[in-house]
Amino acid sequence: MDVHSGFIGATEDQLRAAHERDLAIEAAEGAHVERAWLDPDSGKVFCLSSGPSKEAVLRVHEKAGHPTTESYELPVEVE
Amino acid sequence: MDVHSGFIGATEDQLRAAHERDLAIEAAEGAHVERAWLDPDSGKVFCLSSGPSKEAVLRVHEKAGHPTTESYELPVEVE
Repeated sequence: MDVHSGFIGATEDQLRAAHERDLAIEAAEGAHVERAWLDPDSGKVFCLSSGPSKEAVLRVHEKAGHPTTESYELPVEVE
Repeated sequence: MDVHSGFIGATEDQLRAAHERDLAIEAAEGAHVERAWLDPDSGKVFCLSSGPSKEAVLRVHEKAGHPTTESYELPVEVE
């Protein structure tokens, strides 16, 4: 899970465009950004991704133009 | 999305037990905690929930014994 800040007032179209930039380049890192959620009031975006490492996913975000340093590996999941 | 801290070293069994306490009481708030992910290194837990309000979900977590104040409404989602 990657957390991005500063997206206050962002729209669904803007989130989709950012996500599509990830999707366009993620294969080079062997990663996949699965879902992204936006809170336009706080400007937070949460991205759920899979890949070989946290660093690989962060490189995707950086190359796509929306770098972050806040990332968490989540080896445990329950439903 | 609710973010919990302090779960450093927590196990899958502990996350599952906490999640089941949510599930047992969430109906009273009309909420549902869908998924929870744990990073045992940083101690962060992310909970994806649905419900009538952020406050309703936070009440579920509080009554279940794992309160947090960090919660984000996520009206925008892309896949």
